[in-house]
Amino acid sequence: MIDVNALQKYSLFGGVSPEQIEKIKPLLETGHFEAGECPQVEGQPNDKIYFILSGEVDVIKQGVVIARLREGETFGEMELLDIMPSIATVRAATALDVVMISNRALYDISKLDLKTFSMMIMNLARDLSRRLRRMDELVCEETKGS
Amino acid sequence: MIDVNALQKYSLFGGVSPEQIEKIKPLLETGHFEAGECPQVEGQPNDKIYFILSGEVDVIKQGVVIARLREGETFGEMELLDIMPSIATVRAATALDVVMISNRALYDISKLDLKTFSMMIMNLARDLSRRLRRMDELVCEETKGS
Repeated sequence: MIDVNALQKYSLFGGVSPEQIEKIKPLLETGHFEAGECPQVEGQPNDKIYFILSGEVDVIKQGVVIARLREGETFGEMELLDIMPSIATVRAATALDVVMISNRALYDISKLDLKTFSMMIMNLARDLSRRLRRMDELVCEETKGS
Repeated sequence: MIDVNALQKYSLFGGVSPEQIEKIKPLLETGHFEAGECPQVEGQPNDKIYFILSGEVDVIKQGVVIARLREGETFGEMELLDIMPSIATVRAATALDVVMISNRALYDISKLDLKTFSMMIMNLARDLSRRLRRMDELVCEETKGS
C-alpha cells in the first residue's frame, strides 16, 4: 500500500495534488531491502528513482561512503533520465522501504497524465540544477583552497 | 527572424518537430550583444536560457575564464529553472547573436503546448544530469589526485 500523503513531501511531487498522485499510483512500485543489500551498484545500469519511506542508505563511490540518505530523500534521479551506468553504489544501512518509479513507468505517466508528468520532470530538473549549483560551489572552494 | 531549422540542432529541442517549434516561435526572443557586453552577470538574477546562433562567449567565474561557448551551445539553463542568482558571468567575446527563452515564456509554452513543454524540460533535465555526471567525475579525479 502506497500512502499518497507520504509521497507528497518529496520534492519530485512538489505542486502535484493528492488526486494526481492517486491517479498515477498504479504505476509506482514498492520495494524492501535488508541491511547490506544494494538497490543500486556503481557502474551497473539502473533505470529507477527511489523514494526512501523508512530506513537509511549509504552512498558509496569508489569504495568510500560519501553520503547517508534518510526518509524523505531520494536517489537514482540521474539514472532515471539518461541511460548511463549508476554513478554510485547505494547500500541499505538498515532495513529499507522504498517507492520506486522506473523509466518505463515515467513514460506511462506521460501518456496517462501529461500535466503531472511535466510537473514531476520540472521538479526533477530543479533538483538537478540545485545539486549542480552546490557541486559547482564545492569545486570552486576546493580550487581556491589548493 | 528566428530560423526553425537552426533551433532544431540544440539539445533542448531534441525530439521537438519543426511544426512544434514553429508554434512556440512567437514566444522566443532574439538578442544581439557586442563584444565585451555581458548577457549574464555572476550573482545577478537571470531568468533566461540563451541559444548561441553566432559568435562566442566567455564563461567567467570569480574573475577567471572557465569556458568558451560557441554556436550551437547554450547558457542560462540553471537560472531558467531556479530563482537563484547566476553562477557565472557570461561575456560576449565577439559580436553575439542569440535566441532567448525567458522563464515567463517557458510558462506560456506550457499553457500553449504542454507536450512540447514537457519534451523541452525533459531535454533540459537530461542536460543537467549529464553535466552533474561530468562534474562528479571531475571532483572524484581531483580527490584522488590530492
